Amino acid sequence: MSNEFATHTIRPVRIRDCLQASDIAAIARIVSATGFFSAAEQRIAVEIAEEHLAKGAESTYRFLFAEAEQKIAGYSCYGHIDGTQSSFDLYWIAVAPEHQGNGIGHSLIAHTESRIRDLSGNGIYVETASRELYRPTHAFYESCGYQLAARLPAFYAPDDDKLIFFKALQV
Amino acid sequence: MSNEFATHTIRPVRIRDCLQASDIAAIARIVSATGFFSAAEQRIAVEIAEEHLAKGAESTYRFLFAEAEQKIAGYSCYGHIDGTQSSFDLYWIAVAPEHQGNGIGHSLIAHTESRIRDLSGNGIYVETASRELYRPTHAFYESCGYQLAARLPAFYAPDDDKLIFFKALQV
Repeated sequence: MSNEFATHTIRPVRIRDCLQASDIAAIARIVSATGFFSAAEQRIAVEIAEEHLAKGAESTYRFLFAEAEQKIAGYSCYGHIDGTQSSFDLYWIAVAPEHQGNGIGHSLIAHTESRIRDLSGNGIYVETASRELYRPTHAFYESCGYQLAARLPAFYAPDDDKLIFFKALQV
Repeated sequence: MSNEFATHTIRPVRIRDCLQASDIAAIARIVSATGFFSAAEQRIAVEIAEEHLAKGAESTYRFLFAEAEQKIAGYSCYGHIDGTQSSFDLYWIAVAPEHQGNGIGHSLIAHTESRIRDLSGNGIYVETASRELYRPTHAFYESCGYQLAARLPAFYAPDDDKLIFFKALQV
């Protein structure tokens, strides 16, 4: 019997904390290239990074980067939700198209969860849209142990609901 | 049969748009005095107002004030939710304790909905906590036609869920 599945070449990936000024362009490039983010969302992703740089330690956002061959292959942006005891939001997670399918998304989310555990976080929320384009996104979160916690009908547009996924962290 | 209910003295209320620098102190005073907002929430309410003043027309927040006897009796803060076609958030609505029970909250929310309709908004979301303290808040939103759309268990704290209320606007 032949093996129908391609074996991925797993390139070495380095996980790095902390946003640097030079990362802004990489973030803009990645969120544009994936095809999953609207123009408004791309703008917000960059604005959040710029705001984080400007605010420094005061910022509630935190960033994690996955580097492959000295380049940023993907990143996550997360943070403690103000007004909650220990809930966190995963605001953004994106992997450059040329690096997708190599487990970088799973690695980024696992490291993000580990950082959140270190910060005494006990639950992570992630919001996404219900429309067809995001089916792989839903499958990705489910494969990482996230469950659908809420659905807000027609939130984004008449046929596009907001889905809120959640994962409880064992601390 | 005696009438057990007090007849409220309805004082004339003026509804005013636009945040002015002098309103910041009134906002701080009201969100502190109601007893419904945590220290973190009070800080956020003031920060949002300050950010709005600094950003001017670029800000996505909008404010509405109810004035009685030349003083601010209550206010709402609302705005279009970035990335959505026509969904709005009601971020804050608060009435000073000495003005509660006079219909100012209902008046503020009705005028806020009217402003949102003018901006082609077709749905309003409002988030609140599930704990006992907020029972009157839930009853208030329900009396204004808002329905519970989602519940996120243990969002704020182990025994404190996030409740998301929603009202569809007929445009």
